[in-house]
Amino acid sequence: MKDSSDLKVDLGLGVTSPQGFRAGAAAVGIKKLTEKPDVAVLVCDVPAQAAAVFTQNKVCAAPVIVSRKHIAKAARKIRGAVANSGNANACTGKQGLADAREMARLAGKRLGCPAEQMLVASTGVIGRMLPMDKVRTGIEKACAALAAGPQADAAFARAIMTTDTRPKQAGVRLAIAGRTVTVAGATKGVGMIAPNMATALAFLTTDAAAEAPVLARMLRRAADATYNCLTVDGHTSTNDTLLILASGLAMRGANGAAKPVSEKSADGKRLAAAILAVCDSLAGQIAADAEGGTKVIEVRVTGAASNAEARRAAAAIANSPLVKTAFFGQDPNWGRIVSAAGYAGISGGPETMRLAMGNVVIFDKGRPVAADEAALKAVMAAHDIAVHLDLGAGRGEARYLTCDFSYDYVKINAEYTT
Amino acid sequence: MKDSSDLKVDLGLGVTSPQGFRAGAAAVGIKKLTEKPDVAVLVCDVPAQAAAVFTQNKVCAAPVIVSRKHIAKAARKIRGAVANSGNANACTGKQGLADAREMARLAGKRLGCPAEQMLVASTGVIGRMLPMDKVRTGIEKACAALAAGPQADAAFARAIMTTDTRPKQAGVRLAIAGRTVTVAGATKGVGMIAPNMATALAFLTTDAAAEAPVLARMLRRAADATYNCLTVDGHTSTNDTLLILASGLAMRGANGAAKPVSEKSADGKRLAAAILAVCDSLAGQIAADAEGGTKVIEVRVTGAASNAEARRAAAAIANSPLVKTAFFGQDPNWGRIVSAAGYAGISGGPETMRLAMGNVVIFDKGRPVAADEAALKAVMAAHDIAVHLDLGAGRGEARYLTCDFSYDYVKINAEYTT
Repeated sequence: MKDSSDLKVDLGLGVTSPQGFRAGAAAVGIKKLTEKPDVAVLVCDVPAQAAAVFTQNKVCAAPVIVSRKHIAKAARKIRGAVANSGNANACTGKQGLADAREMARLAGKRLGCPAEQMLVASTGVIGRMLPMDKVRTGIEKACAALAAGPQADAAFARAIMTTDTRPKQAGVRLAIAGRTVTVAGATKGVGMIAPNMATALAFLTTDAAAEAPVLARMLRRAADATYNCLTVDGHTSTNDTLLILASGLAMRGANGAAKPVSEKSADGKRLAAAILAVCDSLAGQIAADAEGGTKVIEVRVTGAASNAEARRAAAAIANSPLVKTAFFGQDPNWGRIVSAAGYAGISGGPETMRLAMGNVVIFDKGRPVAADEAALKAVMAAHDIAVHLDLGAGRGEARYLTCDFSYDYVKINAEYTT
Repeated sequence: MKDSSDLKVDLGLGVTSPQGFRAGAAAVGIKKLTEKPDVAVLVCDVPAQAAAVFTQNKVCAAPVIVSRKHIAKAARKIRGAVANSGNANACTGKQGLADAREMARLAGKRLGCPAEQMLVASTGVIGRMLPMDKVRTGIEKACAALAAGPQADAAFARAIMTTDTRPKQAGVRLAIAGRTVTVAGATKGVGMIAPNMATALAFLTTDAAAEAPVLARMLRRAADATYNCLTVDGHTSTNDTLLILASGLAMRGANGAAKPVSEKSADGKRLAAAILAVCDSLAGQIAADAEGGTKVIEVRVTGAASNAEARRAAAAIANSPLVKTAFFGQDPNWGRIVSAAGYAGISGGPETMRLAMGNVVIFDKGRPVAADEAALKAVMAAHDIAVHLDLGAGRGEARYLTCDFSYDYVKINAEYTT
């Protein structure tokens, strides 16, 4: 969530805003409520350069295994992705793998490409076999509905939702090599969100021209600064997938071919910043729609002995149920924040620490500060709260995004499959 | 929580059951409700051999710093401990340290020993200065009330409570060298409970004779198998202290001196087993009284590549809010359990895993098993639930104790200081 302030994020842009992309969705009853869309297809009209970041959970879902293979084989000619919500196709053994492969094959057949040029993603409950009769119908219907434009964007973003309360998309337009290029994306995710991977599902598209290995590095860096610094409940999912497809169509020359951006050029840096800005907006939308969350909390840790220590401290704070319930209660219980940093494996102690909530300093050099109660109350009552802990031990820093823990988090997750 | 089944744990035994110990308590309004006792003193009538395990949180409270020093100096002649609830004396800087030292000095003065022969413990809210006027009165009153017997045991156990709903004590009697020896203890703790230390406060006493270094090893091993495998919310406290005082009085010979048990003798092993059994009971009582908890969940992981991997997997399962809310909802959402193991840094994958809830196997070799729904429902409806995940990758194993996550956990922790 670094500075990309020169780029204006537009929530009206979606996966089909860049040239060359179409999306379609269908509702076939994989989710309990049959009117909700649950199959989504995204296609690129030309072979796209592609990159992806997947969950690092050892218990990873069949679609993750299949997509990993496909991107390893065909990163320079991916044609699209097929996704379903309502069932994660995780912990489903060999049948699950066969089902994920079939999803890629069916969508590819409909689009005229081999299975390996399609990526697959699933999200929903773990450990149930995919209802493949419904999935087959859904892929057929979603492919028949392929279109570009705001309606297609919205349909795609809705079809990947599970307990999300709203669709999430974002895009930016920028100039590269004298052309207007678009980077856009849609994401889903509200629970089972924790870093160590690209969290949740995210589909980015661009009509910039960039080669797959360059895209992979840009995506990895963007994920590290956004999705991988986002936690709802500390529980790393089995299905997390963040992918980007680049059509290159906005940068075609007179001969129809596009020259890919050079990674280290000003253009390359702008493209990386655009990818970061879109990931930042999408990850922020996940935090804002977190299961049961009533607040978005940004935890910034500075002055650590290293960036790694800062990251551990920020993660411990962002994941502590005690910290999160205190925010729900609008309670400036800063002892929980400082003590969470204390068990994160940091070098120093409280003597050098300084903690501020918003702009109100409440702990400094190992002891409480008499804070302006009214100002502190106003900070805690806001929807967005910035926590800044300086460890006073070095120059390492990190930034995490999280939410509070409410009754509704418990309600949603106690009742999810029953 | 290893097998100590030959030892019968008696919940009627408390800190003064072993010979030579007295306890006293007072209510002086450190807690909001002034009628609740909040200062406790435990004394040994002779200099006791002592050992303690403290929090590993870098942000540790003043009493922990003071007690660490005192036990380093005077482990072979500790006379007692003074404790307060309602205020953790953590993050309180130099004044906090001075206050903790004064607590030891005042209690020692009243008992006729130097400050360094007294240990100090505090529990409650972090970041507030101790109301020393009240604390001074409390120590005076608690010392005046020193007595042995069930009433003194109960008064002590109550005075260390914070949001605990009930006092927690346990003891065992065993034969050592032809004498009847008692090991007993009291504990407190319901939230901010996670391993990496002796969790919460626990005071053990015994009239067995054992040297401080031997006691230290026995206590460390018992803590590792019990308190350090207990998690309510994954948040390691600033104040955790587990200590044992040994008077040796039950083992005095005709000359009045007691021969300490040899660590590797059968007697030494029995004493270690007794300490383990008392810690096991006390830790179990914490799990059963966990903030907002409605169930006690025992997570056993076997078949891991190493004990360390088993422990990481068990901890990830026991700490996952998704797992804990599912148990609150009596929902056998085993995908959350398997996927928590998956992100714990284990070697293998789901292909070799086997998961049982109670005696119902629901996941085997990477895919779901058609389980007896009625039997599974009965398992999930019970108060005590055993989860057994075999990773099928080796011989490592571990056992964790945790609770579910309920609306009340959120309520209690959202409203704790406000």
